[in-house]
Amino acid sequence: MAAVSTPPRPSADALAAAREALRSNAPLVQCLTNSVVTTITANALLAVGAAPAMVDNVHESAAFAAISSGVLVNVGTLDDDRAKAMLLAAESARRAGTPWVLDPVAVGGLEFRTRVARELLEHAPTVVRGNASEVLGLAGAGAGGRGVDSTSGVDEALEAARELSRRTGGAVAVSGEVDVVVSGERTTRVSGGTPLLTRTTGAGCALGALVAAYAAVSDDPLLAAVAAHLHVALAGERAAAVAAGPGSFAIAWIDALDAVDGAALAAAAVTPGRLA
Amino acid sequence: MAAVSTPPRPSADALAAAREALRSNAPLVQCLTNSVVTTITANALLAVGAAPAMVDNVHESAAFAAISSGVLVNVGTLDDDRAKAMLLAAESARRAGTPWVLDPVAVGGLEFRTRVARELLEHAPTVVRGNASEVLGLAGAGAGGRGVDSTSGVDEALEAARELSRRTGGAVAVSGEVDVVVSGERTTRVSGGTPLLTRTTGAGCALGALVAAYAAVSDDPLLAAVAAHLHVALAGERAAAVAAGPGSFAIAWIDALDAVDGAALAAAAVTPGRLA
Amino acid sequence: MAAVSTPPRPSADALAAAREALRSNAPLVQCLTNSVVTTITANALLAVGAAPAMVDNVHESAAFAAISSGVLVNVGTLDDDRAKAMLLAAESARRAGTPWVLDPVAVGGLEFRTRVARELLEHAPTVVRGNASEVLGLAGAGAGGRGVDSTSGVDEALEAARELSRRTGGAVAVSGEVDVVVSGERTTRVSGGTPLLTRTTGAGCALGALVAAYAAVSDDPLLAAVAAHLHVALAGERAAAVAAGPGSFAIAWIDALDAVDGAALAAAAVTPGRLA
Repeated sequence: MAAVSTPPRPSADALAAAREALRSNAPLVQCLTNSVVTTITANALLAVGAAPAMVDNVHESAAFAAISSGVLVNVGTLDDDRAKAMLLAAESARRAGTPWVLDPVAVGGLEFRTRVARELLEHAPTVVRGNASEVLGLAGAGAGGRGVDSTSGVDEALEAARELSRRTGGAVAVSGEVDVVVSGERTTRVSGGTPLLTRTTGAGCALGALVAAYAAVSDDPLLAAVAAHLHVALAGERAAAVAAGPGSFAIAWIDALDAVDGAALAAAAVTPGRLA
Repeated sequence: MAAVSTPPRPSADALAAAREALRSNAPLVQCLTNSVVTTITANALLAVGAAPAMVDNVHESAAFAAISSGVLVNVGTLDDDRAKAMLLAAESARRAGTPWVLDPVAVGGLEFRTRVARELLEHAPTVVRGNASEVLGLAGAGAGGRGVDSTSGVDEALEAARELSRRTGGAVAVSGEVDVVVSGERTTRVSGGTPLLTRTTGAGCALGALVAAYAAVSDDPLLAAVAAHLHVALAGERAAAVAAGPGSFAIAWIDALDAVDGAALAAAAVTPGRLA
Repeated sequence: MAAVSTPPRPSADALAAAREALRSNAPLVQCLTNSVVTTITANALLAVGAAPAMVDNVHESAAFAAISSGVLVNVGTLDDDRAKAMLLAAESARRAGTPWVLDPVAVGGLEFRTRVARELLEHAPTVVRGNASEVLGLAGAGAGGRGVDSTSGVDEALEAARELSRRTGGAVAVSGEVDVVVSGERTTRVSGGTPLLTRTTGAGCALGALVAAYAAVSDDPLLAAVAAHLHVALAGERAAAVAAGPGSFAIAWIDALDAVDGAALAAAAVTPGRLA
């Protein structure tokens, strides 16, 4: 029904505009994330032009979510207090209209975080971003992966992603060899990247933060998710071209996140095979 | 009155001696800091020759502060237990005569940390180091910034810094485009650095740790703060000259923190426009 | 007595096989470690081919230890909840037969962690890895070091290491200028490495994680510990050859952990002076 007003995939112009808006607006992105990836997450946000703030305690998380431009909630290393702070932040973000992203790390395979993630889901995340196992686990449709590895393919998770999107009213991004983003009836696939992105810790978690940053400067959750995934993939390819191994790759990737500009996103958007 | 015995700014010789003392004494610096910057903070301390120890739990923080050569307390990511551990460490440091540094990250804008930071202030930090918004927020004179960004200029914070210095008897350093360190009636400005220092997470927080390291090898809080700020600025300039972006900058900066020696500090001290 | 069936030191073939098994099996290694080193630990595990999972909360640690291929417990930054999660994980690992490694960071000098580490010891770690002061402190034979620095020599800790090995039935590795691994009556010394490994935070802690990864693919705790120490030393030497300072060293070390293969371990094993 909405085929005319919501095109099947984001345009080159819209992607370029979102990327430049990131740099000019420097949106404040609150991160409640796992203890392994705080540094690379903050550095990835700084690299693209956003302003990270890791405010994740129970006393401050709700108030900060109300004044932030975007919020990331990643359940990678939960404890009781952090879970409470996340629920408070998600509720506050929803009330304040702050776009927020849920990254259900290892959900499905572990009870505690699965329960917390499903509670978080009630607060209607603007975007859910995970791998196939996690999306299946969050939707209640799979047994989950072993930790952060995905043991399911992206296409297996497509129906679960659509169901989650219907429940939240937002977008759901499934990361894999080819990433898929769904939002309502729309589906966009993003190709590219490099296996080195899975050989350094935190690239996927930082991607979740970049989705929140893009959601802070765009009204369309699907556009925000596609822009972030494409940005990360392009930066990964540039970094892979100069890296001597996974250590130097991670550093070059941060450099490349800075260097990838609106023109690069726009060019990729019209390259055959990139977006579908 | 004290114009003769306390010169307006640290001498080249005193700065060089402090830097070499860092390397030869390898002072043990206890850090109670935020979860985003622990790694870069430890690596910055190791690079300049100090020995970091991240002892920040309620059971051990006080005992360790009594045997450390310097202590850093950074309120960037507080929870109740960490706040308690910080208060215990600050009290213990004061009683034991261990120099300690307070970094009031995002204080002023967020109630919980502002309250904790003001309690910490009662234990007379040897040096307070923050940006203008944070110094204003700590002194009760401003509304604070948005997270870690400073929305106030250094000069706006000068009177608040002097008031804090009078209250603590120590030095107060305000980081900005030009850094200003005050201690009692003395004021020293440090110029230099690079905008890339604000494009990687934790450089400012690591600077706070280096102030603690310098305070461990110097009796003059103003000298310690000026030496650390100058050291960080010089290393930043060297790193900016070889970096391809914010990722490689952070790595080159650690290399440069190691390479900047007493002669480099001394030369900078007599370069027109560096110190004022 | 067991001289024939348990040779005095691991063979070149066995070391090469263990290294290749790491890459082909990608063992899942659960890490309950300190907050300073999570990133470098995860990246070191990814670099050698293992799959890290930082599951360290009280709700999930036991269940995850039962399904992991190896577990690391590092007491570097303890709080009450983390201590509890560690005890649960260690108990679960022992029951499930999951090999696990205890890294007693700064044990001996600080009461809280010393008590927790000794409780952990009751769950019979497959390998204990620490510096001389920590091994002495864990065995109850020394006053401990100042934080993570070792103030005792490896040979001073040899008797304590043997006693711990008798108590746990596993191996004990003492890191120093020359590393020593003991297991029952067997002793192997590993020479090499570079002082730069002590100038970057977390290399020692990551070594503990690599011991757990090797223990996941080898039935012989001594072999696992020797392989990990040799792997780290060789990677350190390669990284030192290209590094401009401690920052670039840490990155090159991750690259080199990936590059060091079974042939490199085997060649080192037969190089005079490497193993003894």
